[in-house]
Amino acid sequence: MRAEIIATGSELLSGSMLETNSLFLAEELMLIGIETAFKTVVGDNEKDMEESLRRALDRVDIIIITGGIGPTEDDMTRKVVSKIVKKRLALNEDALKTIRERFAARGREYVNANDRQALIPVGSRLIHNSLGTAPGFLIDQEARLIAVLPGVPREMKAMFIEVLHPLLTERFGGRIFIKRRILRTCGMFESAINQAIENILKREQPIVGLSAKETGVDIRITVRAMSDEQAQALIEKTEAEIRARLGDTVYGVDELELEEVVGALLKQRRLKLSIAESCTAGLVSRRITNIAGSSQYFERGAIVYSDLAKIEMLGVSRKLLERHGAVSAEVAAAMAQGIRSAAQTDLGLSVTGIAGPDGGTEKKPVGLVYTALASSQGVKTDEHRFLGGREQVRIRASQMALDMVRRHLIG
Amino acid sequence: MRAEIIATGSELLSGSMLETNSLFLAEELMLIGIETAFKTVVGDNEKDMEESLRRALDRVDIIIITGGIGPTEDDMTRKVVSKIVKKRLALNEDALKTIRERFAARGREYVNANDRQALIPVGSRLIHNSLGTAPGFLIDQEARLIAVLPGVPREMKAMFIEVLHPLLTERFGGRIFIKRRILRTCGMFESAINQAIENILKREQPIVGLSAKETGVDIRITVRAMSDEQAQALIEKTEAEIRARLGDTVYGVDELELEEVVGALLKQRRLKLSIAESCTAGLVSRRITNIAGSSQYFERGAIVYSDLAKIEMLGVSRKLLERHGAVSAEVAAAMAQGIRSAAQTDLGLSVTGIAGPDGGTEKKPVGLVYTALASSQGVKTDEHRFLGGREQVRIRASQMALDMVRRHLIG
Repeated sequence: MRAEIIATGSELLSGSMLETNSLFLAEELMLIGIETAFKTVVGDNEKDMEESLRRALDRVDIIIITGGIGPTEDDMTRKVVSKIVKKRLALNEDALKTIRERFAARGREYVNANDRQALIPVGSRLIHNSLGTAPGFLIDQEARLIAVLPGVPREMKAMFIEVLHPLLTERFGGRIFIKRRILRTCGMFESAINQAIENILKREQPIVGLSAKETGVDIRITVRAMSDEQAQALIEKTEAEIRARLGDTVYGVDELELEEVVGALLKQRRLKLSIAESCTAGLVSRRITNIAGSSQYFERGAIVYSDLAKIEMLGVSRKLLERHGAVSAEVAAAMAQGIRSAAQTDLGLSVTGIAGPDGGTEKKPVGLVYTALASSQGVKTDEHRFLGGREQVRIRASQMALDMVRRHLIG
Repeated sequence: MRAEIIATGSELLSGSMLETNSLFLAEELMLIGIETAFKTVVGDNEKDMEESLRRALDRVDIIIITGGIGPTEDDMTRKVVSKIVKKRLALNEDALKTIRERFAARGREYVNANDRQALIPVGSRLIHNSLGTAPGFLIDQEARLIAVLPGVPREMKAMFIEVLHPLLTERFGGRIFIKRRILRTCGMFESAINQAIENILKREQPIVGLSAKETGVDIRITVRAMSDEQAQALIEKTEAEIRARLGDTVYGVDELELEEVVGALLKQRRLKLSIAESCTAGLVSRRITNIAGSSQYFERGAIVYSDLAKIEMLGVSRKLLERHGAVSAEVAAAMAQGIRSAAQTDLGLSVTGIAGPDGGTEKKPVGLVYTALASSQGVKTDEHRFLGGREQVRIRASQMALDMVRRHLIG
């Protein structure tokens, strides 16, 4: 079963307003077992809307149209649908009554233009709008289903949940159970992950896809099965297979962020962390403290942008800075040890690097970053060479710094 | 001239990821005078992508495709475009060289799968990707223009601006002159701005609209005119009118961020800043250092999450903390003075507050934040009461802290 979501409204094509209804609809449809194959956004233009609807009827089974059913001139969804399904518009008494009552209840003057909202194609089923005035409607057309809903998100959502969800579930759901899990990874390139799990990515079931973000690659597993248990089992089997290949590269599932994982590990082990940052200049500390309750494990941070700050705040020696330069494994190590000892915490984390765009040399190019972690067992350092602009280098550096703590705690 | 934007990627149909590239593209096209008639989102499915592209070729003049040109199996945009325009894919030596150089420059191991990104249809024009590895390309097909760009927003934007914008402007622009300017404000509520410029908002020309963000309200002025000069004059007249009503509340125009304004002012006056943060825990410093070259005016920062850190790093007295609490105007002032004196900078900025969700009391609720600025003229403090969750409180606090520096420097 494949669906298309058609969002209507010229404002959605203007560059100033994002279409968000389809996000909700695609997710809901997916969980019923209906694949959203296309999303189309079309303006308040009769010809373009006709074209879009005809096209959708050719290529999918279920069409959900949002918007264009208000009381004004440019609300032409009703007219277009009526024309395409060849059913004339008729005033629905039930709808008219509800609209008028709604105005009366609010003590608002009734404008006759609102009558227009009660027009629906003959033979279609009315969908009441419990939160607004414009009702929707539903048409069964030669095994195709066309649902028309308002564009206002909360009205659309309520109507979908009240009417369409049960109807679609009864008609198309239940036979197929769909589960989704996202495995979140850090520290491996998309191309390398692709290579490591290539045969899993090629399988038809479950569908496994990659999406690269600044902070790492997400692996999305989507399973369709004949029962909930079967779906769950297949998800778990696939997750285990991927984890066996990628090991610690997977740091969590679904919406979990790396700072939450690190925070939970620190809390669980009752350890405290302090942070010294040069090129990331607060980003790592900002992320650690994104989590409510982080004061339990985060004590302080030093942002040491200048050499003098590294010397005064962390006790890094001037000689070391002169010999190796501020961007070096040696200075990263001294920074981690310096903040750990100043803050008297179990762990001291540091980042120093060249975020760019300036400051790079042949030997030390933009993107070169060192992270270090000091603990009671000594100090470890990592060298990284990140691609991307200043912001990307900093985000990636913050991610690898947090990941260093994670790997230390689970290792 | 009508355009269609086709965004590819199954993740954009999954209900978990919003397609945002088309917002930028529709805006840019609009300013050139090109109408975006359709937006289509299609998954990584060869047949569906073919269908969408064929359809677009039937109904518009300009097609911009984003995404699906990475190195992995499910990146199939190249293949589909090649098939539809009937031009075979060939390895572009220029593109290949750039991709390999990019990897080499950062000392990273090359994975052969990356070669695939250098494949473009014969006869198409290469669009270099200055920020990533996947190049784009451009095809002129029977008076239709097809541009293929990566899905990564910053790469896509840079490539549009560098290559497509001048090309489309030369070819299609210039008949109607459209100008847009955004006035960025900070420290005034949307309803108050609405009241202050109500009559300007009601005018038909220029179109003036408000959009509220976490960090302040943007005022968007859009003008259509018969000449560039006329458009420019009307923009400037409206901007002057709005500025006369709102004064210093307007901190900049268009994409300018508050940290850029503050950075430019510090640089111009040759002043240095240091920062002490409690509840924002690195966010203010992170923002100040978003700007390349910020080491000229930013010296260091102290993230003083615990009381002990406030005492040890900033010399805040234990008595003061006990008497007034860490979240107080008195402690904010001592923090600002403490970091200024430790870092020996012209200005010392501090933030302390309750970001929530826990830690609030009746007297000191979640959202209560103090900012302070120490200079040679003494120390000033501001009290804020922000609405919103933890993240909103922190973002708003960082904005008001930066704004305190701005107002000090211009005042």
